[in-house]
Amino acid sequence: MPDKEKNNSKQNKKGFKNKSSDKQGNFKRYYKKTSKKTIEKLLPATPVKIGFLGGLHEVGKNMTVYEYEDDMILVDCGMSFPDPDMLGVDLVIPDFSYVEKNIDKIKGILITHGHEDHIGGLPYLLKSANIPVYATKLTIGLISGKLKEHGLLSSAKLNVIHAGDKIKLGKFTVEAIHVNHSIPDAVAYAIRTKAGTIVQTGDFKIDSTPIDGEVINLNRFAQIGDEGVLCMLSDSTNAERPGYTESERKVGESFENLFRKAGDRRIIVATFASNIHRVQQIIDVAKSLGRKVALSGRSLENVVSISSELGYLKVPEGVLISIDMIKNYTPDQLVLITTGSQGEPMSALARMSMSEHRKVMITPNDYVIISAQPIPGNEKTVSKVINELMGLGAEVVYEKMYDVHVSGHACQEELKLLMGLLKPKYFIPVHGELKHLTKHGMLADSIGIDRDNIIIADNGSQIVVSENEFRFDENITAGQVFVDGSGVGDVGNIVIRDRKRLSEDGLVIVAATIDLTDRYIVAGPEILSRGFVYVREAEDLMGEAREVAERAIESCLDGGVKDWATLKIKVRDEVSRLMFERTKRSPMILPIFMEV
Amino acid sequence: MPDKEKNNSKQNKKGFKNKSSDKQGNFKRYYKKTSKKTIEKLLPATPVKIGFLGGLHEVGKNMTVYEYEDDMILVDCGMSFPDPDMLGVDLVIPDFSYVEKNIDKIKGILITHGHEDHIGGLPYLLKSANIPVYATKLTIGLISGKLKEHGLLSSAKLNVIHAGDKIKLGKFTVEAIHVNHSIPDAVAYAIRTKAGTIVQTGDFKIDSTPIDGEVINLNRFAQIGDEGVLCMLSDSTNAERPGYTESERKVGESFENLFRKAGDRRIIVATFASNIHRVQQIIDVAKSLGRKVALSGRSLENVVSISSELGYLKVPEGVLISIDMIKNYTPDQLVLITTGSQGEPMSALARMSMSEHRKVMITPNDYVIISAQPIPGNEKTVSKVINELMGLGAEVVYEKMYDVHVSGHACQEELKLLMGLLKPKYFIPVHGELKHLTKHGMLADSIGIDRDNIIIADNGSQIVVSENEFRFDENITAGQVFVDGSGVGDVGNIVIRDRKRLSEDGLVIVAATIDLTDRYIVAGPEILSRGFVYVREAEDLMGEAREVAERAIESCLDGGVKDWATLKIKVRDEVSRLMFERTKRSPMILPIFMEV
Repeated sequence: MPDKEKNNSKQNKKGFKNKSSDKQGNFKRYYKKTSKKTIEKLLPATPVKIGFLGGLHEVGKNMTVYEYEDDMILVDCGMSFPDPDMLGVDLVIPDFSYVEKNIDKIKGILITHGHEDHIGGLPYLLKSANIPVYATKLTIGLISGKLKEHGLLSSAKLNVIHAGDKIKLGKFTVEAIHVNHSIPDAVAYAIRTKAGTIVQTGDFKIDSTPIDGEVINLNRFAQIGDEGVLCMLSDSTNAERPGYTESERKVGESFENLFRKAGDRRIIVATFASNIHRVQQIIDVAKSLGRKVALSGRSLENVVSISSELGYLKVPEGVLISIDMIKNYTPDQLVLITTGSQGEPMSALARMSMSEHRKVMITPNDYVIISAQPIPGNEKTVSKVINELMGLGAEVVYEKMYDVHVSGHACQEELKLLMGLLKPKYFIPVHGELKHLTKHGMLADSIGIDRDNIIIADNGSQIVVSENEFRFDENITAGQVFVDGSGVGDVGNIVIRDRKRLSEDGLVIVAATIDLTDRYIVAGPEILSRGFVYVREAEDLMGEAREVAERAIESCLDGGVKDWATLKIKVRDEVSRLMFERTKRSPMILPIFMEV
Repeated sequence: MPDKEKNNSKQNKKGFKNKSSDKQGNFKRYYKKTSKKTIEKLLPATPVKIGFLGGLHEVGKNMTVYEYEDDMILVDCGMSFPDPDMLGVDLVIPDFSYVEKNIDKIKGILITHGHEDHIGGLPYLLKSANIPVYATKLTIGLISGKLKEHGLLSSAKLNVIHAGDKIKLGKFTVEAIHVNHSIPDAVAYAIRTKAGTIVQTGDFKIDSTPIDGEVINLNRFAQIGDEGVLCMLSDSTNAERPGYTESERKVGESFENLFRKAGDRRIIVATFASNIHRVQQIIDVAKSLGRKVALSGRSLENVVSISSELGYLKVPEGVLISIDMIKNYTPDQLVLITTGSQGEPMSALARMSMSEHRKVMITPNDYVIISAQPIPGNEKTVSKVINELMGLGAEVVYEKMYDVHVSGHACQEELKLLMGLLKPKYFIPVHGELKHLTKHGMLADSIGIDRDNIIIADNGSQIVVSENEFRFDENITAGQVFVDGSGVGDVGNIVIRDRKRLSEDGLVIVAATIDLTDRYIVAGPEILSRGFVYVREAEDLMGEAREVAERAIESCLDGGVKDWATLKIKVRDEVSRLMFERTKRSPMILPIFMEV
């Protein structure tokens, strides 16, 4: 393996623009003259195949599969939140069929960090395929919490790794490299096979002054770049944003200023539960001002408990108090940290804003800081919470200009910097919608990576990568599986389409019991509607519907109709026409006929 | 009237901080000594009451009612788009009960400009109350189009006014003052009574280089300010944004650069139909580059037709071609202007992006400019359209940095400037969510308007305004009325709640015909579900549900239950419990029982 790496290194040091001059046809003559070992070295290596099960053309459910000869490894297994049109769906996970089909080849799954879009699908994957999991300490801690809830903790094969570790998974050797992100203990992976080195960055940013002092290991990226990188897969989340992402430390400075401005009011800070460094800074500033800190929100309590236990969060003695104890303190002695920075309707902050929180009542004595930016799609829910909090008299600080939040993802200059260090021959932007991937591809092009060496892939794409090849292979099975309640995959497009229809115009049920032999209506028709009109004010319309349905049934019975399907279609059409004429709406019409 | 105005003027010239020293108690002694006419002059004038029927704590459905003695006038009658949780609702209009109750007092309705959030409710209002409408020429043109669709054009009393006009409506004298906005012919109103002058700005910005050359009439605002302004109601939309809004002309400059960058590709520009100056600039730049312009989108065609006819849009001979003719031109000869800049699913641009537009097929030969910013809540739909267009190979320009859009609303510096010119004694921020109104109130405070003289009102608030008073009166009826299909107000909270429930977990119908006298099941129970599970894969569950329902009915019949209600509750509970146990979902359970 080290030999092979040196080999790669030589080829790549030539620089980006230098295309490999190997032509497959030239090799054949060598075979007769050289030893088997030499031939193996000189033969074009088996290419690596990179398959995408999620995370492309979308934000969320990141999952990548690497295949080399008969071995496979996975990187990440995330979930995503449902789009607004996925009515009633709780969460979305990748389609695991490709993994299940190849289960015997899979040597393990590597996790880059502990965010839901990288670990949220894991319990569902492990239920059907108990693959060994490799991740850093905090990430394993968060995964464990998740698996416990699903009753999978005792059976799971969890392996803690550290940045710098090199682990062998079948024919792959994988090295974890420390990166900065909005959660501690995030890593990139350098994935080595005889075909060359592939680097997948995971989510990252470059923070030269991170809260835990652990700066992204740029030196190691530089060394790997010098050794030669065949392909780079990089985080595209912020590829549209010029410049640099600010250091997390910036937010701490803002907290110091804002906490002072709060005066003798109670301070409430809403942030992502998993942003442990943010929580650390809130606790530190609170302590410096002699305030106690209480937590509200289950996920926040979980994360604080796990990360304190594992040493990622340092809570000074006596600062943290239970939310039940806040009544014993005056407002100027308190800081509350809460979930709900995205305005999630059931979150602690949303419940406070609606005066529905059992332990926290908002008054003009509250100073609320929303330490987050709305994720696209959440602008309205966040605004609603802000308006409601203001309506209760609280002052709310939420604007960008106060520096109450920084992103966890690299902006354009950082993205280019890491590409420049790694000098990959091939580039695949990942983690993002098409617009993000496209911009990221353009950035790669701008620093000199050949356009032909950049691929914008999609979920289901499989890319063949070797020194000589960089191309799409046959697609693999990929898709989205809806989780609704305890059901995984039992809600599909037909069910969603029905929910959409029901949500728009409601439904009208026409029920009747019919004797098809003697051809008469035994009981009914009864009309029942939901979500269509307010029935008390539409009694006439319901009466008309009953008459129309009755006439339709009778005309069928008189006309010799013998099958239920024809009868149902007739009734549906007639009632539907009436409803549209009267209301310009199209409720779902559901005839339900019974025979005696 | 002029006497009174001078009177006001003297009091106000003292400046903002100078509170009126009149005390009501001091006046009583005057009465006996002076003539009736003098008494009338010296008596505190009847206050004006300003009532809000819409536009506060929300963006949209702006509507204000002014009351002075026995006369009333209205300003604007807008609609708003439904929130995502108003399932199936087409649009939302104000509750008109207060207007209907006071119809005899109402002298007219003044419209500030032709946007939907200021005119969209008008057809619904005029249907029940044929109030005379006053607006500028373009606004009346757009209103006419709308009324025609509703069959109200011939009966409506439409009056064209011009900026500068003073019109008498009962005891009110109203002056229209030209302002800049993202639609031409927008005006503010100075509303005068003996109580003083109230200025309502309508939506506005300050554009020193507008496309039609008609700069906002700051001189007139200054004069009115010098004469004395009792109260100002001002547009809060951009109150959160520091600085100035750029001139519309800036966008034209961007178009020149971008159109050249498009090279020999077809150019497609998406913008708001009503932004006539934007359309003008696209046409002008297209002409200068020798390109033809075609329109796609019904609202755009309407607006272009009305505004050309009325002289607001100047289309040079031979530039505009029908969308049917584009096949006769090469891409480099064409500019398409289209609706759908907010990603609206049925809009022309959205249909193009989904390859569902009958006349425009997107290819890598297209260069698309989204000349708008997503309105909060529309980020995801806009992104979707951008991604889809990119997926078809088009280049899409949508980022702020390209200056492809400027706002139509004043930012903080403009807001303060106009306040400074008008020097109102009292200030009421309007048009915006609570967070916008609050920021606007803080701006007013920052330039020296007394905190006590600023009121943040809500829909339904009625404010008493006179030299001596500025306070909340009893609330008036205000609310939101849902328009769904042809129904106005027949969809209320109960229907929406049912739609929401149906959209999340679907429904399960349990139908049976029962003989309550002889106590046996005649037919059924039949189970039917929609939007709950994919039934083919859940036959067992449906079978179980049938058994549970049957047992529940039989136990009721055996147990002597005689009323349908008890029977239904029992079946609903049992089936509901089963479904939750099996799926962790709560579909709506609808028992429908018939008697023979």
